[in-house]
Amino acid sequence: MNDFRDRKVSSLGITEQLCAYVLKSRIEDIPDAVQAEAIRTLLNWIGVAVGGCQHDSIDIVLEALEHQSGPGVASILGRTEKRDVLQAALINGISSHVFDYDDTHLHTVIHPAGPVACAITALAEQRLVTGAEFLHALILGVEVECRLGNCVYPDHYDVGWHITGTAGVFGAAAACGRLLGLTQQQMQWAMGIAATQSSGLREMFGSMCKSFHVGNAGKNGLMSALLAAKGFTSSEQSIEAKRGWAYTTSTKQDFVEITNDLGKTFEIGVNTYKPFACGIVIHPAIDACIQLRDEHDLGAKDIERIDLEVHPLVLELTGKLNPVVGLEGKFSVYHSCAVAIIRGKAGEDEYSDAAVRDPDTVALRKKVRAVASDNMPKASVAVVITTKDGRRLEKYIEHALGSLERPMTDDQLDTKFTDLCVPILGEDATSELNKICRKVTALDNVVDLISAATLPVVK
Amino acid sequence: MNDFRDRKVSSLGITEQLCAYVLKSRIEDIPDAVQAEAIRTLLNWIGVAVGGCQHDSIDIVLEALEHQSGPGVASILGRTEKRDVLQAALINGISSHVFDYDDTHLHTVIHPAGPVACAITALAEQRLVTGAEFLHALILGVEVECRLGNCVYPDHYDVGWHITGTAGVFGAAAACGRLLGLTQQQMQWAMGIAATQSSGLREMFGSMCKSFHVGNAGKNGLMSALLAAKGFTSSEQSIEAKRGWAYTTSTKQDFVEITNDLGKTFEIGVNTYKPFACGIVIHPAIDACIQLRDEHDLGAKDIERIDLEVHPLVLELTGKLNPVVGLEGKFSVYHSCAVAIIRGKAGEDEYSDAAVRDPDTVALRKKVRAVASDNMPKASVAVVITTKDGRRLEKYIEHALGSLERPMTDDQLDTKFTDLCVPILGEDATSELNKICRKVTALDNVVDLISAATLPVVK
Repeated sequence: MNDFRDRKVSSLGITEQLCAYVLKSRIEDIPDAVQAEAIRTLLNWIGVAVGGCQHDSIDIVLEALEHQSGPGVASILGRTEKRDVLQAALINGISSHVFDYDDTHLHTVIHPAGPVACAITALAEQRLVTGAEFLHALILGVEVECRLGNCVYPDHYDVGWHITGTAGVFGAAAACGRLLGLTQQQMQWAMGIAATQSSGLREMFGSMCKSFHVGNAGKNGLMSALLAAKGFTSSEQSIEAKRGWAYTTSTKQDFVEITNDLGKTFEIGVNTYKPFACGIVIHPAIDACIQLRDEHDLGAKDIERIDLEVHPLVLELTGKLNPVVGLEGKFSVYHSCAVAIIRGKAGEDEYSDAAVRDPDTVALRKKVRAVASDNMPKASVAVVITTKDGRRLEKYIEHALGSLERPMTDDQLDTKFTDLCVPILGEDATSELNKICRKVTALDNVVDLISAATLPVVK
Repeated sequence: MNDFRDRKVSSLGITEQLCAYVLKSRIEDIPDAVQAEAIRTLLNWIGVAVGGCQHDSIDIVLEALEHQSGPGVASILGRTEKRDVLQAALINGISSHVFDYDDTHLHTVIHPAGPVACAITALAEQRLVTGAEFLHALILGVEVECRLGNCVYPDHYDVGWHITGTAGVFGAAAACGRLLGLTQQQMQWAMGIAATQSSGLREMFGSMCKSFHVGNAGKNGLMSALLAAKGFTSSEQSIEAKRGWAYTTSTKQDFVEITNDLGKTFEIGVNTYKPFACGIVIHPAIDACIQLRDEHDLGAKDIERIDLEVHPLVLELTGKLNPVVGLEGKFSVYHSCAVAIIRGKAGEDEYSDAAVRDPDTVALRKKVRAVASDNMPKASVAVVITTKDGRRLEKYIEHALGSLERPMTDDQLDTKFTDLCVPILGEDATSELNKICRKVTALDNVVDLISAATLPVVK
């Protein structure tokens, strides 16, 4: 086991212990199942980052900050442009969250991959980093951010912090610090420089700033590690000090969550992935509709009405009856059920403006009725489809696909990945990228993976 | 008056009103006395930014982020290097705070010039900005950050936020947004992008991160305005929303402080400048020693002992008996009084390693005795110097030089400026820079001022 475990843990600071673990962890000590989940996390992240790369927000950042990038040495996933490492981290982080379709650490609602992966992807192109080192850094960065989240959640989130941004910057700093080979003191400085940039408000939800938080956390965490590597000093107990991060940003501090069982449990092992490109509260209803559709070979023409019994939050958050643009569709349980019946899935393409305006879908969504019930658990739904030929088809979902209880299968993740990447990269390149990602730990240089996720520059 | 005043103010949001004011303010409506104080603020800021430009932290940032800068179009004050606008803002902001010798808005302990001035200085070189427009932007940026500070101080500061960083980012965004000619909606987005980057922990005091906060606020505020100008969206009520900045970062929200008497009162009009390069708590003691020295023509050789009666905070914060390096001297009331007698001032040079180790100064500081008294106000001191020839010389200071009650004169500000700039720029260039700064509102292009504060590149 790691050396630091032999010391009197109680005499060490929280930041110090966490940094010592990040520096001394060995990938050989990380269970195979955890590494396998980390590969699924990476695959899912690359899929959403490539899929989101043509969003307006990406074009805006590329244009607004065009003259604020150093030489273009780091790739923008799914595109031809290259930027300096900080800007590449910012942009890849934004694109990976812009569909709200990335991974979720359910205990803290942190989207863990984004801030860490965007930072190490930018950094890795500049250094010789093996696939195993890269995956290890991802695992460690996710560990750091989720443990910090566990320490302060829920108070920190409830008061208004977008925890993916505020905790993510630490994960990015830790992962980059590991790849840069920082000393113990430099790593503590990096965490301090990250702590003092920790930011991101929930008030931004619904604007481009929400996904900005992910990229900004990655960029700032990476910058923290770069500065610390050259001797830029900071507090060495930024997490636990009286005026440090945990006390300043939260009324709850459970520091044991940060240090307990370090190296024994892994937060990336309980990561989850969204099967549907919308808010998680309507996932049970979509799941039920797709199952009934497939079991009974249903089409729109077969259906008389669809009745849902849902948790009250479903109508509060996603009760939009007549969505007009794609984004509004994500906030409509009615559209979501209709498109699930017609297409058998609810990926990003099912929330395009065209999908929301499709006449068959519009007609079917008017046949969906939802009733809120205080007795229905948040993770569950009861759906009854009445067919035109008089059948009454029922489905109760206790836990939706994508939950910890019913994780997405590898095949389902591959389908999601394919749907996201093919429109950007084409079928062959998507298939090749998937293969490279699945064998990431065998890569001598992770740049092979990054190149495969990027468009070649047309000469 | 401004148009927005004709509308029903109560129906407008706080962010909306503040942005409307920033966009519609006219420099002609700003009283001459306020403009004069703004020029003093600018002069003081340039002095400390030039003076601090050779600090280790600046060299570290320049090296660590060398490849993360776009083309060098913006000046680093006091140096030859040029960087992109974001990095120049970062660096000039750091150098202006690294001596802890900049300006103070006493009500909130915000150091107002730094975050705003570093951002608009970087931006102004890229655009044709007149001296009057530049000064106006500085006044407006300071207005925004100090009003936000007034809204949340003291709770926000007490919980652990370094308010110069957290409020400064709004000031920088507002001032840059004004210079960029943002629309009302874009300005509200810029404030939102700034809000969601607001950060900086008091835990960092004593490390390089303290001055990093100033530059980072300037950099991030500038980036907010650049992004908003291209259409990057954000919340339009980032300050006052339920999960916005004020509620997330403070238990006190006094929104009237933000909107009341906008355009009628000016926070830059109550700005103050440090006459001594150390913590404000020992300023009364230094002031008393210098006055007694000058009134009685005292030298170290004349003095038997120096007795101080001080507020308890003085010994708590600055009770270091035997400082060894310059920085420790700033936390020693004993060194400060000794060097005040010997040199008649306490600028940055009086806190060099050499000054702290000077044998005469060391000998004299051993003759200084300080007694804490609960009856002594924090702003005051009683000093008794006993001379070798038996005289007992007394001085009671109610308010030290540099306070609102006893502001530094223009001559004293010039002396401070000269002491800071001459070692970097030389005497002639310093004198010329001072003149240009004093007549800033007459400049057709503020680049004349910036160039005068920068070293020419040696061919």
